[in-house]
Amino acid sequence: MGPFRALSATERTKLGRLRERGLTDRSALHDVLEAGLICHLGVVIDGTPVVLPTGYGRIGDTLYLHGSSGNRSLLAAAGAEVCVTVTLLDGLVCARSVFHNSMNYRSAVIYGTARLVTGDAERMTALEAITEHLIPGRWDNSRRPGKKELAATIVLALSLDEASVKARNGGPKDDDEDYDLDYWAGVLPITMTVGTAEPDPRLRDDIRVPAHISDLQTHADGAALAGDRLP
Amino acid sequence: MGPFRALSATERTKLGRLRERGLTDRSALHDVLEAGLICHLGVVIDGTPVVLPTGYGRIGDTLYLHGSSGNRSLLAAAGAEVCVTVTLLDGLVCARSVFHNSMNYRSAVIYGTARLVTGDAERMTALEAITEHLIPGRWDNSRRPGKKELAATIVLALSLDEASVKARNGGPKDDDEDYDLDYWAGVLPITMTVGTAEPDPRLRDDIRVPAHISDLQTHADGAALAGDRLP
Repeated sequence: MGPFRALSATERTKLGRLRERGLTDRSALHDVLEAGLICHLGVVIDGTPVVLPTGYGRIGDTLYLHGSSGNRSLLAAAGAEVCVTVTLLDGLVCARSVFHNSMNYRSAVIYGTARLVTGDAERMTALEAITEHLIPGRWDNSRRPGKKELAATIVLALSLDEASVKARNGGPKDDDEDYDLDYWAGVLPITMTVGTAEPDPRLRDDIRVPAHISDLQTHADGAALAGDRLP
Repeated sequence: MGPFRALSATERTKLGRLRERGLTDRSALHDVLEAGLICHLGVVIDGTPVVLPTGYGRIGDTLYLHGSSGNRSLLAAAGAEVCVTVTLLDGLVCARSVFHNSMNYRSAVIYGTARLVTGDAERMTALEAITEHLIPGRWDNSRRPGKKELAATIVLALSLDEASVKARNGGPKDDDEDYDLDYWAGVLPITMTVGTAEPDPRLRDDIRVPAHISDLQTHADGAALAGDRLP
């Protein structure tokens, strides 16, 4: 019953390593990572699972996460086994029976040992990737991090070798004998919408909204959506 | 640097038990749970963290999760320590410096030992709460679960006693010396939008979209949003 029921730990062993499964899955993985804005990072601290939301970026087959060097969960994740999950909710699926109610979604689950990135060059390209993932063009349109800021930042890398992608789409699947019931059935599509940019009250009067910002705004006709902003 | 940096495992000890912190936090927790549609459940399996997205519902101070009895992660969560995180992304915060780029968000993190719900009555009210959380009114507008379906369903309960809520809102906070820079700064608001209901192709011709479904659709003026559908 319910959404996501097929997503389970057994996927880890069942799906195995993506690298061996060819381009289709790898490209599906990249698509989900591209469409998502945040991930949920799972790490074990003193035997307890901790799940925290955070931004991310991808370069090739490596996922990068970052955060404050004061963040104990991120520190704990360095060198530890982690699970990173990106979920996109695409619709509420209303079946004629409660049991077959579901959700349309795309999700990626990545397992691996997070590596603390220490090299200056890799740290900088990782921060660029994380910044550009959320707002393409932002890296060249804001002040780059300085020495002190870099020292206050942890960067983690996670290989995309062990990952699985799952998705559900389409309408409800009811039991044959339920199609005659009096209940409405169908899908309520869900999208992420980026509204009109709200300038900082302290913004200099002569600075207009740049293209890399206005490009992200969802058009009134819904043509551009945050979750699908790139082809 | 980056979003969510203040959310860390130390919250668990720092914030302590919500029950002792009074109505404000409890009501903020309920608000986040009400506004969210899915949660991310963290559980430790064979020493590895596993993070899976799933639906939920709340009754009083108890959060309910459900899933297929074939879902090994949910089975592993029964009687185990879990972490449930609900995150609402409200905006992309563009600062003049990469370091101060951030996100506006609301998040709830709940820690506790998940209890396998075995009593028939509690299982049924839990399933009602989970169904009604996603689509208010759906429980009375679809066929209730039967014996076989119930047998195929796990229900877990998690006390909301140990939980924390975090949020960021408002514009960017830049370093004093950065306000003169040439870069645009501000917020791109993000909302969840529920589109027009798509009837199942096999829907009976005489069944119209009922009020509990059309009520969820986002109005063209953006007045009703999925994430804020209830006061």
